[in-house]
Amino acid sequence: MIFERVESEGLAHYSYIVGDGGEAAVIDPRRDCDVYLDLARKAGMRIASILETHRNEDYVVGSAELADRTGASVHHADSQLDYRYGEPVEDGQTWKVGRLELTALHTPGHTPGHMSYFLRDPDGEPWVVFTGDSLFAGDLGRVDLLGEESMHELAGLMYDSIHDRLLQLGDGVIVCPAHGEGSVCGSAIAERTWTTIGLERAQNPKLQLGSREEFIRAVAVTGERPPYFERMERWNLEGAPSLGRVPSPPALSPDAFAEAMGGAVVVDTRTELAFGSAHVPGAQSLWLEGLASFGGWYLPHDTPLLLVGRSNDVEEEVRRLLRMGYDDVAGYLGGGMLRWHMAGKASARIRTYTVHDICRFLDEGNELSILDVRSDEENDATTIPDALHIHLTELPERLGEVPRDGTLYVFCGSGLRSMVAASYLRRQGFNDLVVILGGLAGWKSTACPLEL
Amino acid sequence: MIFERVESEGLAHYSYIVGDGGEAAVIDPRRDCDVYLDLARKAGMRIASILETHRNEDYVVGSAELADRTGASVHHADSQLDYRYGEPVEDGQTWKVGRLELTALHTPGHTPGHMSYFLRDPDGEPWVVFTGDSLFAGDLGRVDLLGEESMHELAGLMYDSIHDRLLQLGDGVIVCPAHGEGSVCGSAIAERTWTTIGLERAQNPKLQLGSREEFIRAVAVTGERPPYFERMERWNLEGAPSLGRVPSPPALSPDAFAEAMGGAVVVDTRTELAFGSAHVPGAQSLWLEGLASFGGWYLPHDTPLLLVGRSNDVEEEVRRLLRMGYDDVAGYLGGGMLRWHMAGKASARIRTYTVHDICRFLDEGNELSILDVRSDEENDATTIPDALHIHLTELPERLGEVPRDGTLYVFCGSGLRSMVAASYLRRQGFNDLVVILGGLAGWKSTACPLEL
Amino acid sequence: MIFERVESEGLAHYSYIVGDGGEAAVIDPRRDCDVYLDLARKAGMRIASILETHRNEDYVVGSAELADRTGASVHHADSQLDYRYGEPVEDGQTWKVGRLELTALHTPGHTPGHMSYFLRDPDGEPWVVFTGDSLFAGDLGRVDLLGEESMHELAGLMYDSIHDRLLQLGDGVIVCPAHGEGSVCGSAIAERTWTTIGLERAQNPKLQLGSREEFIRAVAVTGERPPYFERMERWNLEGAPSLGRVPSPPALSPDAFAEAMGGAVVVDTRTELAFGSAHVPGAQSLWLEGLASFGGWYLPHDTPLLLVGRSNDVEEEVRRLLRMGYDDVAGYLGGGMLRWHMAGKASARIRTYTVHDICRFLDEGNELSILDVRSDEENDATTIPDALHIHLTELPERLGEVPRDGTLYVFCGSGLRSMVAASYLRRQGFNDLVVILGGLAGWKSTACPLEL
Amino acid sequence: MIFERVESEGLAHYSYIVGDGGEAAVIDPRRDCDVYLDLARKAGMRIASILETHRNEDYVVGSAELADRTGASVHHADSQLDYRYGEPVEDGQTWKVGRLELTALHTPGHTPGHMSYFLRDPDGEPWVVFTGDSLFAGDLGRVDLLGEESMHELAGLMYDSIHDRLLQLGDGVIVCPAHGEGSVCGSAIAERTWTTIGLERAQNPKLQLGSREEFIRAVAVTGERPPYFERMERWNLEGAPSLGRVPSPPALSPDAFAEAMGGAVVVDTRTELAFGSAHVPGAQSLWLEGLASFGGWYLPHDTPLLLVGRSNDVEEEVRRLLRMGYDDVAGYLGGGMLRWHMAGKASARIRTYTVHDICRFLDEGNELSILDVRSDEENDATTIPDALHIHLTELPERLGEVPRDGTLYVFCGSGLRSMVAASYLRRQGFNDLVVILGGLAGWKSTACPLEL
Repeated sequence: MIFERVESEGLAHYSYIVGDGGEAAVIDPRRDCDVYLDLARKAGMRIASILETHRNEDYVVGSAELADRTGASVHHADSQLDYRYGEPVEDGQTWKVGRLELTALHTPGHTPGHMSYFLRDPDGEPWVVFTGDSLFAGDLGRVDLLGEESMHELAGLMYDSIHDRLLQLGDGVIVCPAHGEGSVCGSAIAERTWTTIGLERAQNPKLQLGSREEFIRAVAVTGERPPYFERMERWNLEGAPSLGRVPSPPALSPDAFAEAMGGAVVVDTRTELAFGSAHVPGAQSLWLEGLASFGGWYLPHDTPLLLVGRSNDVEEEVRRLLRMGYDDVAGYLGGGMLRWHMAGKASARIRTYTVHDICRFLDEGNELSILDVRSDEENDATTIPDALHIHLTELPERLGEVPRDGTLYVFCGSGLRSMVAASYLRRQGFNDLVVILGGLAGWKSTACPLEL
Repeated sequence: MIFERVESEGLAHYSYIVGDGGEAAVIDPRRDCDVYLDLARKAGMRIASILETHRNEDYVVGSAELADRTGASVHHADSQLDYRYGEPVEDGQTWKVGRLELTALHTPGHTPGHMSYFLRDPDGEPWVVFTGDSLFAGDLGRVDLLGEESMHELAGLMYDSIHDRLLQLGDGVIVCPAHGEGSVCGSAIAERTWTTIGLERAQNPKLQLGSREEFIRAVAVTGERPPYFERMERWNLEGAPSLGRVPSPPALSPDAFAEAMGGAVVVDTRTELAFGSAHVPGAQSLWLEGLASFGGWYLPHDTPLLLVGRSNDVEEEVRRLLRMGYDDVAGYLGGGMLRWHMAGKASARIRTYTVHDICRFLDEGNELSILDVRSDEENDATTIPDALHIHLTELPERLGEVPRDGTLYVFCGSGLRSMVAASYLRRQGFNDLVVILGGLAGWKSTACPLEL
Repeated sequence: MIFERVESEGLAHYSYIVGDGGEAAVIDPRRDCDVYLDLARKAGMRIASILETHRNEDYVVGSAELADRTGASVHHADSQLDYRYGEPVEDGQTWKVGRLELTALHTPGHTPGHMSYFLRDPDGEPWVVFTGDSLFAGDLGRVDLLGEESMHELAGLMYDSIHDRLLQLGDGVIVCPAHGEGSVCGSAIAERTWTTIGLERAQNPKLQLGSREEFIRAVAVTGERPPYFERMERWNLEGAPSLGRVPSPPALSPDAFAEAMGGAVVVDTRTELAFGSAHVPGAQSLWLEGLASFGGWYLPHDTPLLLVGRSNDVEEEVRRLLRMGYDDVAGYLGGGMLRWHMAGKASARIRTYTVHDICRFLDEGNELSILDVRSDEENDATTIPDALHIHLTELPERLGEVPRDGTLYVFCGSGLRSMVAASYLRRQGFNDLVVILGGLAGWKSTACPLEL
Repeated sequence: MIFERVESEGLAHYSYIVGDGGEAAVIDPRRDCDVYLDLARKAGMRIASILETHRNEDYVVGSAELADRTGASVHHADSQLDYRYGEPVEDGQTWKVGRLELTALHTPGHTPGHMSYFLRDPDGEPWVVFTGDSLFAGDLGRVDLLGEESMHELAGLMYDSIHDRLLQLGDGVIVCPAHGEGSVCGSAIAERTWTTIGLERAQNPKLQLGSREEFIRAVAVTGERPPYFERMERWNLEGAPSLGRVPSPPALSPDAFAEAMGGAVVVDTRTELAFGSAHVPGAQSLWLEGLASFGGWYLPHDTPLLLVGRSNDVEEEVRRLLRMGYDDVAGYLGGGMLRWHMAGKASARIRTYTVHDICRFLDEGNELSILDVRSDEENDATTIPDALHIHLTELPERLGEVPRDGTLYVFCGSGLRSMVAASYLRRQGFNDLVVILGGLAGWKSTACPLEL
């Protein structure tokens, strides 16, 4: 028997493979699906079924790809939608996987046709429930993605799904959701990487809300929606273009890179320090670990991307991009910035200050024009006085609010998101920018006149 | 934050590393401890503490080794014992690991000083309990290892530990024991690889027993005790000899191997088919996956071992042996049996029959003298009529019961353990042996006159 | 600068990648071409050119596949042929790869349009010559593959190519051929894995032949030609079907495997010992390392293959098969023979004797009917008296010569090829077969009455 | 048979393993010797002999370590020295390794007792010569390391070794030296990674010198001698301290790192861009690929080192350091500079200019005070007018020549060495430093008034 979780970092996406007696099932696979084939092969198992918990919007589900490579049958939740491949799932439908048994559990809320899958162990006893985007550790799936008009109704359905179905499974049952901490699908997902019905009943803030009405009021709120969701939703109905393998974009010489920049967007996945020090003019900073969280707000789908990676090995960058439907990576800068500079190419920089530099600056009686790109939750927890607060994801649409004269000091929690923001502002014509290294965490660790 | 389980296959031993804020703790490490260093390094963490749940007897605990390599402090449960290194743990003692908190929970039963460790998550909420050899999935730790005289008292303590301490943590808490299915430390460990207080409360057969008395009667039973436990117990008090690294025993030519055989035991880890076909005369069959379960009954500690591996890469064999204190592997047969035969060396074989061969043989009116080496539990479930039943682990001491004349047909579940038994019998002078391929599983899948 | 040899084991095929200044060229790539992409990526280089030394017949050249994945241009030697893709090469044509320079050198003989490629190092000095199938270490490419009628003319051209072109490059130049020892393309390739013009001038037996006429007489001889060459030749003109990736055939349960056997050939890549002990009835033994050398004689292209591998990981088997155009692997036996037997399936065996068993048998005055499947060269070196000698590759067409009554003792050098032969004979209805373990090597290491 | 080259990057050190018939020999092993054990194991071979070509001074030879782990015998060249382990080699001494044969060839010059090892292939024919530090591709070993007084005599011996012994082996013989391009042991080693007697005879500049006298004049020149050579020479006689394994220094939190800095030197192996942007105050820049070439000039042996690595995985850094005898790595900064800044720690920066910035600056009529740290050879090829030229390796001893007032613009070929120099100057109290990104390569690729 096998039971494994596969985590896709960046997206904080969890998928699962369970198998017994020579057969396996995969729940919510990702698109670069070799990992499931490898796990199945190691166990001598054939992947026979692919189960989706809902029509995903934050990543390209790998069902079509994995079915192509294995002949497995695909089972779609949200069967009210017009899928172009696979079969619809019904509440109560069961799958035998050797001695294991999976049962579909209609748990609407995040979507109207959302399914959870309840797993019985080899002895036929309750064991695990795959909850998709309904119940997370410490949070619930969002109900606003279908629009403001339906979110109150969905919130009510979510309440019923949680209380009437999932909590009925018993406190000991292990909860396996589709996302962990860091996902755009839940802003408050807890860090406990494994959880249970009992832990959620006791600790999940949204399960502490008294009445159905109170719950709906708290849960039916609109959140952010990255532009790339649109392609995800469409592709997940049609079946995304077949990959076959993870593509290997070519190394480009500085000259070839410079030439290709004409119709492309340059994405630089290095640290905030290296980027600040020197980058290809016009590049968008998106440090690797932040690529999945923020790439969807800053990268277009209809334009080729060019990469400046952390090294010549950009496979991880390519994987993370194609999980979000960015299939068109036209190449990467072979030899990186070193070769760029050795070819005599010009580069740009963005100034960085440590919190000590800022301290000194303030000590000298200066004033700071601060742009704070942390999230609303972070801002609520600690507000920076007199700062302009715009969450990183809202910057493109609220660009008009950002002052264009004087030096702008960009703050976030650590300096990473600040560089994403600063590089975007630079692309929009802002020139006098300073990124604060260490961000608010650094600030709080230092004695300084800026009281928060 | 990290929270990872490290599984040592064969022993079915689970150890754990948890870390936050740059520090990590390891619970019940194994001896070849690179795996913890790699996980810590990947996370940029320093291993600061090593916690033991009890004085282990089924494997060499890696505390001394890991402390050597990291400077971590070692904390011993069973502090009544005379440890030569590390520090004793007290009930209620706590460790902060970044935002995580571990609390020692005295849970006697398996041993008098057994400790569990209760883990609070980054938000300070109940999360996980590391139960060592007290509470397993579907089973409990044995109480007979300190001797028959104390086992009733220990069983009572176990009852109290389970009911008064562990079950009080709440059904949602995740249970992380020191062993999974396949361990010699619990014959009935369930296959569910992750479990919780709630699942155990509902499903663990030993938690369904009504009263403390009933529980003691059911749990206070003597089990098997492999001879190698003695060294484990001693080494785990003294601190096992330092390894530094996994040793690389030399490849030996057929001539050098033959010469070294004088004072050594040959261990052959290939499949039952390859072993039956041809093996170095005198070799003991112990297929790789069975090495940890059965090696302790068949291999001496005071004699060098020589390996015939599945390939020239015997690292996995060496790792599994040193976890059981078999440090003296004098070499392996370079090039395997092919080179042995090409050097003109003689080999031995053990006959193998499929169940079809047996069928035919019985159809012709013949009688079989069967030795069944399955466990008592398996025998209780399906008894082979007229067979001599001796569990594989008891064969050495009950050798006198095995008939020496006529052909002996050796049965187990699949054929693997039969070959271990047959090779042992061959070493003891039995010559007319047949191993049944597929074993009882094969038999049950076939129509045949041998009714069971 | 990079200069790497990529060896494809089994075929003993050597390909090469050279690169400088951000660009790379590949000579005679194989079909599973990830390896070149990985090497190029590590160096931050783009694969710009693919050079073929001749129209290959012993493997599927990866030019089309690699061009698909990189956009590299393909350059064909043997440009008299009707290629459906790529461009013809002319004698003297040059390619700049950064500071390196490659020059095409027309070296007919193996084929009429065979090209070698001469490489100048970063300083513009003579360095390496890629000789394809013209000059090997210790041997030359065959001249008989286009038919007996043209081989004398080609032998003459080969003489001229060697003497007038390659030897003129200077003794210090490093020779990089397309094959090493073990290839079907040269029966006498030496074991020295790197060689030079000077070493070949002095040591290559075929360069010691005095006159052009003597050379032609010695070199223009017909050799064996595996049936699979036909597909290779066709595909290498058309461009082989695109793979995209190495396929992952599914694990099959014993029942599914048994069912699929209807229209398929079962290939078993385990050792001779495991195969002899038990195999799926009707299976063809082809131990992994011998798959490329002998598979082409025993496996059809128009029938699906089913694998019984050394483990559940059959990737290496699949790679070796697709290099020879066997793309249709329908699955493998998940869990191997153990699961087969546990499912109650019948298996077959082939008896194996050590040379000691044979000795004893002869000592008792018995006579042996021996089939010797070693090569002609091996037979010339040591002839087994009274044996029927048929090289393994000729067995299918000379099947009528093999006696069908009495026990047939099958001999080779080690026992591996004997099992290939015996399993083939078994498939043709021969039932009384014995494979000699250790083969002639074992025999020679033992004192025994069979004088050779 | 196996014949493999093992390259230690950074040092550009080549070692070799050859094996046949179950035994292997290693020539000039490195200290982290797992790589040889892995190669031997894969081939089923036992490492029986270790051959040294000379008493090495640029790295810790791994003979003692490898002998410890394998029981192999160690054979020392330079047997006039007082070795504390192993056995002396004599000219003409031979070793059989299966069918291979190695013969010691006294080739004094680099050292008085230097030995080459001539390898005959499995057929007994000349094949390869391991030339240690006598004959390199395009260069010869230095003769000045024993002091100026003996270097003329050694140069003469080198002439004789080359002409009377090595060149006599024949042009076709493959030359396998102990170093490739980039080694401190030869400033002019060519980029051709494989070479032969013939290529060297024709192309090696030092083999083109007419007479013995001319040769001596050209070759007997003193070069640079990194301070760390002293420990190397001593350890290579005594046998270096046993490692057992590659150590895993602990991750340190910013606080712990800051505290440990008291008695330690901080080594930062990140790129010049990241270092320039922000580094721990007082850190020495030594980008990873330059660590072996320049570390020996800037790092003390008697002080612990602390690492700021490219990531949390500092194994490669640790390996490169211990090959040079830097065994005392006290830890690394877990989480890197990001965590440092988030902990509110202060960092330092060094300004970087692209060549375009410089251009603009010059266009405006400014003057530059340039420090050029390229090598003498590079300076001879292209001299920067009015620059102060001090090779990076001479900077510590010529520190007094560097002007302390005004801005100092530091130049090298690419910007990497400039940052090493600049960080050293900063540690010595220089504050107004600018590193030129792209260095001379960038300059030459750009139209600009600084004429060179």
